[in-house]
Amino acid sequence: MKTLSFTFAKRFDQVSGSAIREIFKVIAQPGMISFAGGNPSPDALPDDVVREIASDVLRDDGKTLLQYGATEGYAPFVSSLKSYVTEQLHCDIPAVLPVTGSTQAMDLLCKALIDPGDTILVENPSFLGNLQCMKLYQANIVPLKSDDEGIIIEDLEEKIREYHPKMLYTIPTFQNPSGKTLPEDRRKAVAQMAGKYGMVVAEDDPYRDLRYTGSALPSIKSFDEEGWVMFLGSFSKIISPGLRIGYIAGHPDIIRKCTVGKQSTDVHSANLNQAIVDQFIRRNLLPGHIRKICVNYGEKMNRMLSKLSEFPGEVRYTKPQGGLFIWAELPERMNAKELLNKAIEKKVAFVPGTHFCIGGGHENTMRLNFSNSTLEQIENGMDILKNLVLNEM
Amino acid sequence: MKTLSFTFAKRFDQVSGSAIREIFKVIAQPGMISFAGGNPSPDALPDDVVREIASDVLRDDGKTLLQYGATEGYAPFVSSLKSYVTEQLHCDIPAVLPVTGSTQAMDLLCKALIDPGDTILVENPSFLGNLQCMKLYQANIVPLKSDDEGIIIEDLEEKIREYHPKMLYTIPTFQNPSGKTLPEDRRKAVAQMAGKYGMVVAEDDPYRDLRYTGSALPSIKSFDEEGWVMFLGSFSKIISPGLRIGYIAGHPDIIRKCTVGKQSTDVHSANLNQAIVDQFIRRNLLPGHIRKICVNYGEKMNRMLSKLSEFPGEVRYTKPQGGLFIWAELPERMNAKELLNKAIEKKVAFVPGTHFCIGGGHENTMRLNFSNSTLEQIENGMDILKNLVLNEM
Repeated sequence: MKTLSFTFAKRFDQVSGSAIREIFKVIAQPGMISFAGGNPSPDALPDDVVREIASDVLRDDGKTLLQYGATEGYAPFVSSLKSYVTEQLHCDIPAVLPVTGSTQAMDLLCKALIDPGDTILVENPSFLGNLQCMKLYQANIVPLKSDDEGIIIEDLEEKIREYHPKMLYTIPTFQNPSGKTLPEDRRKAVAQMAGKYGMVVAEDDPYRDLRYTGSALPSIKSFDEEGWVMFLGSFSKIISPGLRIGYIAGHPDIIRKCTVGKQSTDVHSANLNQAIVDQFIRRNLLPGHIRKICVNYGEKMNRMLSKLSEFPGEVRYTKPQGGLFIWAELPERMNAKELLNKAIEKKVAFVPGTHFCIGGGHENTMRLNFSNSTLEQIENGMDILKNLVLNEM
Repeated sequence: MKTLSFTFAKRFDQVSGSAIREIFKVIAQPGMISFAGGNPSPDALPDDVVREIASDVLRDDGKTLLQYGATEGYAPFVSSLKSYVTEQLHCDIPAVLPVTGSTQAMDLLCKALIDPGDTILVENPSFLGNLQCMKLYQANIVPLKSDDEGIIIEDLEEKIREYHPKMLYTIPTFQNPSGKTLPEDRRKAVAQMAGKYGMVVAEDDPYRDLRYTGSALPSIKSFDEEGWVMFLGSFSKIISPGLRIGYIAGHPDIIRKCTVGKQSTDVHSANLNQAIVDQFIRRNLLPGHIRKICVNYGEKMNRMLSKLSEFPGEVRYTKPQGGLFIWAELPERMNAKELLNKAIEKKVAFVPGTHFCIGGGHENTMRLNFSNSTLEQIENGMDILKNLVLNEM
């Protein structure tokens, strides 16, 4: 194949091949214990139920499902989804749009709102996929200061005044990658700041239902009196990521722009996939399924936390009440990338935290996923990591 | 709901609510004979086969299908798709990317290549969805001159020299909306121009298999010696649009950029949907299914052409050998929007051609779809249109 002199768009100037993708290639070996991904456990994927539902919906409404659908969504799903989201968030949801995974929600929000150079405030570290999305919209990505409970509100207000941001992107519950959860008073404050300064908040909350201890917190959206908060939801962690169904909920003017953007992005999300999620809601299958997942994941999280407590005292780590990730900080002199290389030799993998950090740095940090390993793998893998860390002390 | 002063991105400045969407709302009434859409006929949607396949693939590989997949595509499908496309196009296909309907192929190509102000050459009229896509990338859309056989090559070369376009967007076979097909010598010339001037060609060919008479033509891609032609394919017209599976094939450097763009757009196309199309290919179901559709649609097209021959001689129309659309030109003094209003009163609908034209104009033109009506509806609907036209003469 001849090398041609394609001139790619400037939006790719800041975006290179993802280092994480390279890690995933290296660790895709048999026998690897991987704390690197963010995948649901295979046990948590309801293949038999999906198979039964797919058969039912294709029997009952096959012609409609295989035909073009509306960009606004498959009508029965739009209806069940709206009720579901309203009930989940305990607040009025004026409009909702089914999307092709909540990643598309972020893409459409950026498409609707972000011109090159517009500022988006983000937690630091944050979710890599959506940081890449913001870069492709040539946003000015400004990191916020955090403490153990997430965004520091004083810093948020300072940065709003300094940068006049178009948007705040936050994962308030069991954040990826830090595992942190924003407390209720700060959620309220974020919503108030949004209204006070006229800033859209993208509240990305895919881990919300994966709570293993403690009590659910109200969403930022539930404190949103004016309509600046857009809620990004996903069925990836509670049904299946492979189906690619998520949603965006909030002010109808923004939903309308996202809908127009979606028309020329993928026309509509696949009807069959919307109908499958619709049946999970209508048949009331989610509460029982989520309970089952939470028991499974909670046990794994506790096992990993218990193994981390055996690490040298200098190793700090978050103690989430749910989600998929624990964030660990090694002593500052240690380098998590070097540790990863040694770990991979012993067939254990994780993601160095620096990859999630705006502008890099934080070389001593690591993200550990527990959902996609067995208890035995967690035992063995964490022992290997502990010994590697001990060797560096 | 309070009206808030959201500042939307400049890319929406050129894009308003689609006039066609408004038409579709008006015509969504019981009893309407619609020549307006571009939908497959319900008979052509293989719901029983999809139901059986969905059940099989979820049984055989359910856990993989419900898990996160690779952005590059579901591995068995990437493999069968590459063979399929190579065989279809009779040429070497170095790389292929499954996408969420071929609309996403265009979105990703623009994401990869188009900065605001970059020129894209297009046929005039052209497919509205992709024109909207180009507008959202703030492209400079420059229409080409056509005759009855499509793009005039001399005009193409002139415009290339004048505008130094990044891309040519063309639907060479049974074009939407005109029904025109670019002959072989011009296809070859387009590929040569692309190589000579360093211009990417987006060859959008969703109607390729819907040929009812005459012989298949080689793709532009098959004349592409250097790698400037990207082929956009779709399973929407030959299996199901509701499944949202298409593909983009061509130079690996562009496919790679599209893949990076897709990571933060929807991560990957739904695995289940890819697996369903994969089975259509592997079970060799497409040739028989396409033959069946072509008999059905060919009869409808001939009926519509035969009814058009009863219109006053001043009415000109294309005589396609396939596809979904006929393009009709009324005498210049007539206005197709006004005709539509009268037609809707009599429960017949079509799309005025002006909506597909760059910069409007061509108020006397209309796009007629025949696939989604019965023979009886075509008879009755065309009689009603004929009488309305006769009344205007």
